[in-house]
Amino acid sequence: MSLLETIQDPAQLKSLTHEQDIQLCQEIRSFLIEHVSKTGGHLASNLGVVELTLALEKTFDFSRDRLVFDVGHQCYVHKILTGRRNEFDRLRMMHGIAGFPKPSESPYDAFVAGHASASVSAALGLARARTRNGTDQNVIALIGDGALNGGLAYEALNDAGQSGESLIVVLNDNGMSIEENVGSVSKHLAQIRLKPSYFHIKQIYRKLTQKIPGGRFLYRITHAVKQHFKKTLLGSTIFESMGFTYLGPVDGHDVKKLCYLLDVSRQMAGPVLLHVVTKKGKGFKEAEVHPERYHGLNPSVPPEPGESFAAAFGQKLRELALTDSRIMAVTAAMPRGTGLQAFEQQLPEQFFDVGIAEGHAVTMASGMAAGGLLPVVAIYSTFLQRAFDMIIQDTALMQNHVVFAIDRAGLVGEDGETHHGVFDLQYLRCIPGMRIFAPATPDELRNMLSKALYECSGPVALRYPRGNWENHPAENRIHSSPDITIACYGTDYWEAVKCADLLEKEGIAADLIRLKELKPLPDKEVLESVRKSGRLLMAEQTVSQGCVGESIASALAGSGVQLCLINFGDSFVTHGSTKDLLDAYGLSGEKMHRKALEVFSFEGTH
Amino acid sequence: MSLLETIQDPAQLKSLTHEQDIQLCQEIRSFLIEHVSKTGGHLASNLGVVELTLALEKTFDFSRDRLVFDVGHQCYVHKILTGRRNEFDRLRMMHGIAGFPKPSESPYDAFVAGHASASVSAALGLARARTRNGTDQNVIALIGDGALNGGLAYEALNDAGQSGESLIVVLNDNGMSIEENVGSVSKHLAQIRLKPSYFHIKQIYRKLTQKIPGGRFLYRITHAVKQHFKKTLLGSTIFESMGFTYLGPVDGHDVKKLCYLLDVSRQMAGPVLLHVVTKKGKGFKEAEVHPERYHGLNPSVPPEPGESFAAAFGQKLRELALTDSRIMAVTAAMPRGTGLQAFEQQLPEQFFDVGIAEGHAVTMASGMAAGGLLPVVAIYSTFLQRAFDMIIQDTALMQNHVVFAIDRAGLVGEDGETHHGVFDLQYLRCIPGMRIFAPATPDELRNMLSKALYECSGPVALRYPRGNWENHPAENRIHSSPDITIACYGTDYWEAVKCADLLEKEGIAADLIRLKELKPLPDKEVLESVRKSGRLLMAEQTVSQGCVGESIASALAGSGVQLCLINFGDSFVTHGSTKDLLDAYGLSGEKMHRKALEVFSFEGTH
Repeated sequence: MSLLETIQDPAQLKSLTHEQDIQLCQEIRSFLIEHVSKTGGHLASNLGVVELTLALEKTFDFSRDRLVFDVGHQCYVHKILTGRRNEFDRLRMMHGIAGFPKPSESPYDAFVAGHASASVSAALGLARARTRNGTDQNVIALIGDGALNGGLAYEALNDAGQSGESLIVVLNDNGMSIEENVGSVSKHLAQIRLKPSYFHIKQIYRKLTQKIPGGRFLYRITHAVKQHFKKTLLGSTIFESMGFTYLGPVDGHDVKKLCYLLDVSRQMAGPVLLHVVTKKGKGFKEAEVHPERYHGLNPSVPPEPGESFAAAFGQKLRELALTDSRIMAVTAAMPRGTGLQAFEQQLPEQFFDVGIAEGHAVTMASGMAAGGLLPVVAIYSTFLQRAFDMIIQDTALMQNHVVFAIDRAGLVGEDGETHHGVFDLQYLRCIPGMRIFAPATPDELRNMLSKALYECSGPVALRYPRGNWENHPAENRIHSSPDITIACYGTDYWEAVKCADLLEKEGIAADLIRLKELKPLPDKEVLESVRKSGRLLMAEQTVSQGCVGESIASALAGSGVQLCLINFGDSFVTHGSTKDLLDAYGLSGEKMHRKALEVFSFEGTH
Repeated sequence: MSLLETIQDPAQLKSLTHEQDIQLCQEIRSFLIEHVSKTGGHLASNLGVVELTLALEKTFDFSRDRLVFDVGHQCYVHKILTGRRNEFDRLRMMHGIAGFPKPSESPYDAFVAGHASASVSAALGLARARTRNGTDQNVIALIGDGALNGGLAYEALNDAGQSGESLIVVLNDNGMSIEENVGSVSKHLAQIRLKPSYFHIKQIYRKLTQKIPGGRFLYRITHAVKQHFKKTLLGSTIFESMGFTYLGPVDGHDVKKLCYLLDVSRQMAGPVLLHVVTKKGKGFKEAEVHPERYHGLNPSVPPEPGESFAAAFGQKLRELALTDSRIMAVTAAMPRGTGLQAFEQQLPEQFFDVGIAEGHAVTMASGMAAGGLLPVVAIYSTFLQRAFDMIIQDTALMQNHVVFAIDRAGLVGEDGETHHGVFDLQYLRCIPGMRIFAPATPDELRNMLSKALYECSGPVALRYPRGNWENHPAENRIHSSPDITIACYGTDYWEAVKCADLLEKEGIAADLIRLKELKPLPDKEVLESVRKSGRLLMAEQTVSQGCVGESIASALAGSGVQLCLINFGDSFVTHGSTKDLLDAYGLSGEKMHRKALEVFSFEGTH
């Protein structure tokens, strides 16, 4: 039996010897590599925090102390050590454990973490609650250096720094976001990583003063001098400017040192920042060398046929930008995910990765547009939520011509509820002057991208899903006397085709109309078709309130057309494979067909 | 003729003598006090930047150089000096000039600025466009210390600091947000305000080295030593850590010094931060002592009757919090605006002003909720847009019980398009599990606040408008055989009553149903009424796409009920008095009535 298998409760970790710690870390690494290679998930980030997580679990008791992850990519070791080891075979699968922290899954998980930079805010709230409640839990935020680029983290540090609350911010600094980190704060971190540990100097000084008579007194009265000495010798960190006690940098792969400094942090009053230097992918050679490739792994299944939307977007944008130097690609820490890697390499002067800072990406791009450039902002649907106000205020209000390339619209599969792109229709549709295109194939995305850049003005959104699709044309089906109209957009077309086929088999004439544009609406073809069919089934990968179907419903008011809207309802969509989820939420062709028969009476239509 | 009246073109300012500058500033102050007292608007912030604006206009040419304001409260002096002096009688009135910078109003306005912390992002985009275009405009962002609390500003500084772009960030540091500033960065600024000007020391050193033989060479080779000297003597600022050249602090009421340092900034390559210390309300005693009272002035009209929603909210929350120590009030730099001033004074330990940092306010509050407290987040509708993602990810996903007190929902009047609360229904309605209440009177708000705190779970929003209202009960009118159903919510009820009265006079039986809850929907009473009347008129102070009317329309599908939705359409709503705007957009009782007669045929109903 391995040491790991003997750990039933994180309390057992406290009594492990140094040698056992090292052995356990080794076993955890093997466990991660073995399981994540099979199930898919975030590998490199978790390999980087094995020792750090162990040190945290040894020092604290997270059944009552609160550990707030940031982004949460790196919570696997925590899950392994807090009773969920045996569930890793079903990691990120439907009904299996989530890939992110989830309080509803375990009392050891303090807070959901899917979007970056939120941990310090949440932890400060928990710390304030602790203080108000008169209890004494330790509250720890574990934040990566990439997430530190996000304005939310800064807002929180700014508040926490003057709050007086005891709170430990553990900065997991691996010099990376999901890919290589950017920004001046990242450079600042790189500088302070190279400096001797201030804490070490302080310890030497303390020992020294304890050895001479009256030394303790001397230690106290020299505080002011010491502070000056420290600043002179080490410069000051941005964190100290913000009111934190700064400790570190410390080697994030040395459990002993980590435990010692975590213990020191715990004993300090007020906010502490512990700077931990880790290596993403640690212990797995390929992941250490190419951590960006091992950031997120897909399950080991054969590759999907067809072409990926992201690749088609990147390829077309590069092609256009080669002949139009006004085109600028802007992304927020996602050059690879958004398909812009080759663009970055070939056209570095037209490429801007601003780090995990979606709001700034949008406003900066709008500034570019105001200056006469043609910016294209490539951000996933779920992350662009962060920039909602910047799209309204800083872009649409002036009708600046910014193109939003919104990848991962609709279901994203295994990443689950924190990552599904199921709100973009709502937050884009309401913005005055916004145009929204929804391609059904990568080829169509290419055409729409050209159109968005050269035939539109003001803000324009292209929203397209994760994954690969064949480039078959997505054609509408129109009957002279339809019994039902099926409307959809994007790749839901391919499920809607199945539904239409099943209905046709039963002798029901099904018009199938795919909306290429989701704003402005209503679509003329849909209106013409329902005028004849009297029945509209509309399927969408979005939440119900404010969906496109509602907009069409208001255009059909008074017509007597019967309506069946299929979507995710007023709920968050769990994790699982996209195929499983489509079926579970009624958006597979078969389920659409069943629903159509349930809702509409087709009696007398033939 | 005053000196000010002779200024037809900002180019004339360049040749003014020192004495003329002083005289002109005096005249501008008198002009501001005279006009803003009459029209209403932002007084104290503009009094604080008279000299700074003059220095900017003297140094640069904003017909081609780009000046990006932040928030834009302080753009009046700029407007006065760039050809809009004679339009100040109609400041913030419908068809008059806007209270905020507006490129469509003048070529001297580079970018819209209504929400805080966006200027550096926009300026960086403009600077990058300048560089790509191969032109040489200077780009200046003028940001207040309050706006520096916003994460967006940090994201932009982080990007700008490593961009190499020539860009001047003028920090207008008056130690205030709209009210007294908060946060650790604000404390950091206060510290560096007290230090001797590094730039001054550098000048002395340069002069010294120029006087001795070989001094220029010495000046160059001592750069490294100098850098060290500077850090040792002055400590380093957070801005230098982020890659900016830091200049200042400089007296913001000394035109000569300002011009000198702006000129130095212009000649430097790369990003520069110029720290300017100003006094909010400068030159107007009462505004200097109580700048928060003179931040925004209302037009000098008699006070509206009734009670303000904000005051009712603050009073009730205080009353509840006195007996329930779990209640926490959280606001983002708006204790006065949101009615929480007395709460702050009486219950400081239950009060949290996080500064202009809406995202953090929400996530921190959700952390409080996760820790067992009862947080109430009071933020205006338009500013809560910044926290859209934090409501989804950090609050609703865990169904944490956070109450959102959303003031300024609907029209706000003179502040105009950057400030109207016309998107909250859309961005709240789509969030799973969100409940939304819309009181029609301050009394009702009090009741709903209790209900939200003690009878609800998960995220709950109370959305209510700016201004005063009488506490008359807003009662529904139901007929046994209605000809039309009028539905509305919030204070639109009072206009809807007028519409109903006008219809009744014509013998048309008008049911009037006010929705107290906007989610969940549909409202049973509305459904029952329209089943009889067959006609629904729904009036809302919101944009059209995703409005509540669309949701009701989808519930009515197939019923044959005719629909007339009155709202602001797919457009931004301009500035002006709320009364004028309601009429212009068809939301006055008279206009609703006219529209009802246009859209519906009432023939044969009697």
